Amino acid sequence: MGGDFGPGITVPASLDCLRNNPDLKLILVGDSTILNQHLGENLSVFKDRLTVHHASQQVEMHESPSKALKNKKDSSMRVAINLVHEGLADACVSAGNTGALMATARFVLKMIPGIDRPGIISALPSVFGHTHVLDLGANVDCTAEHLYQFAVMGNELVKAVENIESPRVGLLNIGEEDVKGNEQVKTAAKLLENSSLNYIGYVEGNSLNAGNIKVDLIVCDGFVGNVALKSIEGAAKMISTLLKEDFSKNIFTKLAGLIAYPVLRSFKDRIDPRLYNGASFLGLKGLVIKSHGGADALAFKTAIEIAEIEVKQDVIRRISEQVEKSLTLSKSA
Amino acid sequence: MGGDFGPGITVPASLDCLRNNPDLKLILVGDSTILNQHLGENLSVFKDRLTVHHASQQVEMHESPSKALKNKKDSSMRVAINLVHEGLADACVSAGNTGALMATARFVLKMIPGIDRPGIISALPSVFGHTHVLDLGANVDCTAEHLYQFAVMGNELVKAVENIESPRVGLLNIGEEDVKGNEQVKTAAKLLENSSLNYIGYVEGNSLNAGNIKVDLIVCDGFVGNVALKSIEGAAKMISTLLKEDFSKNIFTKLAGLIAYPVLRSFKDRIDPRLYNGASFLGLKGLVIKSHGGADALAFKTAIEIAEIEVKQDVIRRISEQVEKSLTLSKSA
Repeated sequence: MGGDFGPGITVPASLDCLRNNPDLKLILVGDSTILNQHLGENLSVFKDRLTVHHASQQVEMHESPSKALKNKKDSSMRVAINLVHEGLADACVSAGNTGALMATARFVLKMIPGIDRPGIISALPSVFGHTHVLDLGANVDCTAEHLYQFAVMGNELVKAVENIESPRVGLLNIGEEDVKGNEQVKTAAKLLENSSLNYIGYVEGNSLNAGNIKVDLIVCDGFVGNVALKSIEGAAKMISTLLKEDFSKNIFTKLAGLIAYPVLRSFKDRIDPRLYNGASFLGLKGLVIKSHGGADALAFKTAIEIAEIEVKQDVIRRISEQVEKSLTLSKSA
Repeated sequence: MGGDFGPGITVPASLDCLRNNPDLKLILVGDSTILNQHLGENLSVFKDRLTVHHASQQVEMHESPSKALKNKKDSSMRVAINLVHEGLADACVSAGNTGALMATARFVLKMIPGIDRPGIISALPSVFGHTHVLDLGANVDCTAEHLYQFAVMGNELVKAVENIESPRVGLLNIGEEDVKGNEQVKTAAKLLENSSLNYIGYVEGNSLNAGNIKVDLIVCDGFVGNVALKSIEGAAKMISTLLKEDFSKNIFTKLAGLIAYPVLRSFKDRIDPRLYNGASFLGLKGLVIKSHGGADALAFKTAIEIAEIEVKQDVIRRISEQVEKSLTLSKSA
């Protein structure tokens, strides 16, 4: 029900995923009357793999997380997360209110022992393929321990979904020299140096998309990660806006634009942010994927696909085991 | 003498500025033998407006600021800043070691009373023209007071160099709602709301280049600002790299690239980072402009031009007066 467009995009995206993947089963949680309307005859087409689960409420996009938790116990969001908690669903995908989704997920699913705070991770396109980044906004203030916990969890996720033996882990900083950075980052660097992770050292903001060397996972606090992500979005938007302006100047530039169109189009597809939509909450005892609120059907489909991959790769179990091995041990040591 | 290329780029850039602006006088500070070699007959061509001032040492690019301060009392950087302090120069422009330049500038020039820490400000291209951002990396931890001081200084600079009566000032955050952000940002927001500045509220990372509304000045701590700036650099580099790849794929895409070349070229010129090179240190009793270390002659020329504009606009005096009026008053109140 969530996001800027609700079932108008979540339903078509779901149907598309069901068509593409014959193993997939989906439970659509929300107002059953509205959902059934959007589904129409598809409900019978996919009858073995598609269920509608009624929820009488929905969390508004700007509702406060605490109010949503208290007053919306039958919201689509809450019910979907309950299904994950009860083992009736393997993951929850939502385009709804991020704060409420996080608060509800934390309340219902609980944290993995050894993890203090959940983090939000997503992949970005880079000249080397992908870079996964966390935290993207769940935590505005992080201690070195929090950053280290993010690294352990993110490392396990990247291993699973990218099928990399030993991901290259970088710590986001404002320079590569040892003296740079704040105390949290400097202390986190020491924890990472002494860990079994393939820690490559400090990386700077440009490494998110195009550093000098490949980085598979970049760790930072949620304030910095969120600003970096949105700065990249802004840069891409400016470039696309100005490029369009320049190709629209006169008849000659328009003609050039027409001829260059197939290349520009295929280029645009390569870095299409919709193909990177879907951020995973890490640190919880269950899988929750947050789609961008403004996602269209293609973008929401990507978020569902990310959930599929993480379920198949058993990401939550792998993270829980790794956390138990490396974090609870180090705490008791 | 500083930067990755030394006089090989600083001298041609200086000569270009002298040619373009008949009012400009330049003092080149550094090893006079080397500088004279690079200058050749230009020394006599511009004899009334060009001086070489010998300095026997130079600060290395990775030397620690404290060592440079202690051991390099006759470095080109130190001598140039001394000239500003003594009133023999109106501004110092350097492509050298940022940390050492900042430490030296702070030591020699001293802070404007009422300002606790210097900040680094630069303009970025945006869909609306320019956005000025500070701090870009001088301070990794900032209090609300520091952010507020940055806003007061940045506001005065933007008024002067952009000729705007009342710049639109935004505070960088991870959301636009009141509840978002860390304590420093929330408290700074209150200080800004109660100030005489044209404070428009929280802005997100995308506002640096392409937000929904025009912002003239964005204030943030140096860690966040530096990461955002470099994230934007990385995004632009990735886009340019992938675009080149796509136009190089085959004979047809190459042909399309050839036809689109003039448009792509003029587009590239519009957002050429060399046209934005040069960040000003604010909060000091003298003008220091830091050029990117990897600047070429065109980029270094931009940094000199920024110094020219800020000298003509009397930026340091205006900031000092404004700080005295608004900050020292508010402290005694």
